[in-house]
Amino acid sequence: MAKLTSRAEDYSKWYNELVVKADLAENSGVRGCMVIKPYGYAIWEKMRDELDRKFKETGHENAYFPLFVPKSLFEAEEKNAEGFAKECAVVTHYRLKTDPKNPKKLIVDPEAKLEEELIVRPTSEAIIWNTYKNWIQSYRDLPILINQWANVVRWEMRTRLFLRTAEFLWQEGHTAHATKQEAVEETEKMLNVYADFAENFMAMPVIKGIKTPNERFAGAEETYCIEAMMQDGKALQAGTSHFLGQNFAQAFDVKFANKEGKIEYAWATSWGVSTRLMGALIMAHSDDFGLVLPPTLAPIQVVIVPIFKGEEQLQQIDNVAFEIQSKLKNKGISAKYDNRTENKPGWKFAEYELKGVPVRIAIGARDLENKSVEVARRDTLTKEIVAIENLENHIENLLKTIQKEIYDRALKFREENITKADSYEEFKKNLEEKGGFVYAHWDGTPEEEEQIKEETKATIRCIPLDNKLEDGISMISGKPSKQRVIFARAY
Amino acid sequence: MAKLTSRAEDYSKWYNELVVKADLAENSGVRGCMVIKPYGYAIWEKMRDELDRKFKETGHENAYFPLFVPKSLFEAEEKNAEGFAKECAVVTHYRLKTDPKNPKKLIVDPEAKLEEELIVRPTSEAIIWNTYKNWIQSYRDLPILINQWANVVRWEMRTRLFLRTAEFLWQEGHTAHATKQEAVEETEKMLNVYADFAENFMAMPVIKGIKTPNERFAGAEETYCIEAMMQDGKALQAGTSHFLGQNFAQAFDVKFANKEGKIEYAWATSWGVSTRLMGALIMAHSDDFGLVLPPTLAPIQVVIVPIFKGEEQLQQIDNVAFEIQSKLKNKGISAKYDNRTENKPGWKFAEYELKGVPVRIAIGARDLENKSVEVARRDTLTKEIVAIENLENHIENLLKTIQKEIYDRALKFREENITKADSYEEFKKNLEEKGGFVYAHWDGTPEEEEQIKEETKATIRCIPLDNKLEDGISMISGKPSKQRVIFARAY
Repeated sequence: MAKLTSRAEDYSKWYNELVVKADLAENSGVRGCMVIKPYGYAIWEKMRDELDRKFKETGHENAYFPLFVPKSLFEAEEKNAEGFAKECAVVTHYRLKTDPKNPKKLIVDPEAKLEEELIVRPTSEAIIWNTYKNWIQSYRDLPILINQWANVVRWEMRTRLFLRTAEFLWQEGHTAHATKQEAVEETEKMLNVYADFAENFMAMPVIKGIKTPNERFAGAEETYCIEAMMQDGKALQAGTSHFLGQNFAQAFDVKFANKEGKIEYAWATSWGVSTRLMGALIMAHSDDFGLVLPPTLAPIQVVIVPIFKGEEQLQQIDNVAFEIQSKLKNKGISAKYDNRTENKPGWKFAEYELKGVPVRIAIGARDLENKSVEVARRDTLTKEIVAIENLENHIENLLKTIQKEIYDRALKFREENITKADSYEEFKKNLEEKGGFVYAHWDGTPEEEEQIKEETKATIRCIPLDNKLEDGISMISGKPSKQRVIFARAY
Repeated sequence: MAKLTSRAEDYSKWYNELVVKADLAENSGVRGCMVIKPYGYAIWEKMRDELDRKFKETGHENAYFPLFVPKSLFEAEEKNAEGFAKECAVVTHYRLKTDPKNPKKLIVDPEAKLEEELIVRPTSEAIIWNTYKNWIQSYRDLPILINQWANVVRWEMRTRLFLRTAEFLWQEGHTAHATKQEAVEETEKMLNVYADFAENFMAMPVIKGIKTPNERFAGAEETYCIEAMMQDGKALQAGTSHFLGQNFAQAFDVKFANKEGKIEYAWATSWGVSTRLMGALIMAHSDDFGLVLPPTLAPIQVVIVPIFKGEEQLQQIDNVAFEIQSKLKNKGISAKYDNRTENKPGWKFAEYELKGVPVRIAIGARDLENKSVEVARRDTLTKEIVAIENLENHIENLLKTIQKEIYDRALKFREENITKADSYEEFKKNLEEKGGFVYAHWDGTPEEEEQIKEETKATIRCIPLDNKLEDGISMISGKPSKQRVIFARAY
């Protein structure tokens, strides 16, 4: 197995190689679209199941809406339409026919042109609010709390596995409410669900904040986000929750009679996370040996590898290993015993390191004599000798420790890579020399934001929700500012 | 609540009304595409989860492949391409722009024409086998046992909710094997998984069989199927499993070195079930009062309805009801307590009947005195008085009984609606007067099959796997036949 390019050498190359070598995903025969391979999909399934549980726990139900959005619906909410028009796949025909010049080839049948073009959904506000129109007449029909798991298509020009692909998988929540306050509360509630998931399940610390108008979702009144720091110091937007005001209700004429009998437009939110989280997961924790997975997301949490000479030794180890495996399973820990004879232990060690299996147990003949095994941690690459008796309890605790320490390391890294800048010079120096997040003052205008972006490639990631107020002056215009915002280069 | 059209009056209308009124699905703003509503989706989720469990249990992993198939890949396997060319959605452009004549409208940007058109997948053999090409070099890479949960699009001209929609949700298994025998075994194994699911989970008896060449999946060597009888006597194909031979391996040049080092084409299977199963479920069991759900598929298995006058009575009933609910939950039974005061008990009874909740518990003041409740079965519409003590055990057993009896009733219905015909006259008479399945001899030619289809609208549903051999002569040509096949009109 060829070694990975190291992060220090070429972070971007390291990422691409890791995604492919760890069997997570690969590019497909369709421009910008990826194949999510079984191992990668198994991790995504774990994310999905936990998020789904959290959505249901907070009162949401799943539903499914059409893949296609007729152009007339797509363009109804102008800002939203404008935001996505430049990157959408358009279905114009509904039939192929045999090429008259070559009977083995097919051509688009010009007689099967659609009267109205269909847009492959880049997001589903339009088709969903066109549906909600028929569901909402009275305040009694509200709130509507619906989530959808689906594929969406955004025709991005430059794509990268998981981080930016033409088609991706995601969930999109779409809720309708009787009051503005309720919709804002929902927006914030779902942001907290995402933050909780990122921190406690992905072991990835995030900063909760609000986007500047420039960076808002097209059609939103306010976009909340969680931002994570990757190991190269760049930011990655890991989830967004939008307060959509009455924009979609107005565009699709969704009105209801309130308790007093007055007719009002409904209030909306939408919120989503996508397979982009896979990219975040990889870049937050992994190292030069491969993937590092928090135990909560590991398809295999423990791998047991026998170290043996000859059939007889293997058989003795088999007996012990199967018993350990079964005891771990009883504790709800997924354990694989890899006693294949085609591959040497060293090969297996490297393979499971690459795949990010959190704990490896190695058992040799000497271990059997000593009634102990070697336990290796993937995250720290450390090893220890542990007694076979009560091993399952030891492993159970170890997995919890690993989960916590992966988070702690990521948090420590982030804290070490946050700086403050009080002048534009200092800001540029920090960005160039240290990278990471830079807290700085901004005058609140899109112009200053644009200029900084053009000159430094750093964008305002968010205005943190828990920000301390602090008087200052903005870096370029010198106008007064009440608080610092977070700047960073971003994925 | 307006009553449903009865089945006797208009079976087709009954079905459409039921789907909409029970909140399962509705037509959308996109021609032929449906919205699956939360209650319908919750049932589909239960189907999906159980199938997914069965697939994993039989060694399959999930993965995800692109939504789009480039035309050149689509046309590679000729029969498959021919089979789907007439009903596929084609993406030709990747951008919209503002209409120069009307700045509020968008038009397709003619400058953003794709070099190669993309077909929205009607099925994924092409894109998947184009991927497998890179995954398969040696017999050690085989078998590949992958399943995908996805949406697909087939541009059907006449659509019906769940039964035939332009977009639908499904799973498609795609496996690759080193030998023909292994691929055939896989095809049969998955047919059995489907049959087991249909019978034991959906409580819907099915006949396992093989399709005639006319009815085969485009590109398959052999199509296995499960066929179910609906309450109007018509057949519904509930799942198919295809042995694809080496057709796709040849089309996409997927070769491997076998154990002897010889280069061979890989052997393929594919198998799928879709949201069509929702239609089957509805039509197999439901009645003029609404949906009838087997307990395994019911999002709510038990509903508790209080019958009360005044706040004080409701409070007393609340206490008992919450305790019953919690005891049921401890047994893994999903129970809803509906103590809303806006709706009368009668309204609630009708509502939960419409939604197919298998068991209803009604509690009144008199019941509290007697330490008993009224338990009603949705499937039989019968009621009984049951003591509150150990009620949870009673309900647990009752749910099992209901599951079994729903299946038994469907099986009895099917047996009563299977006839044999020995002449074409008798065949036509049976179809007209009795409907259902007709076992008859057939000469094995597509011509006779076509003629029967044209003249009677009945198709050969399958050649049953467990068929008894029996000498006979075919109905039209009079040629000798070794076995009867199943004819029926079908969805």
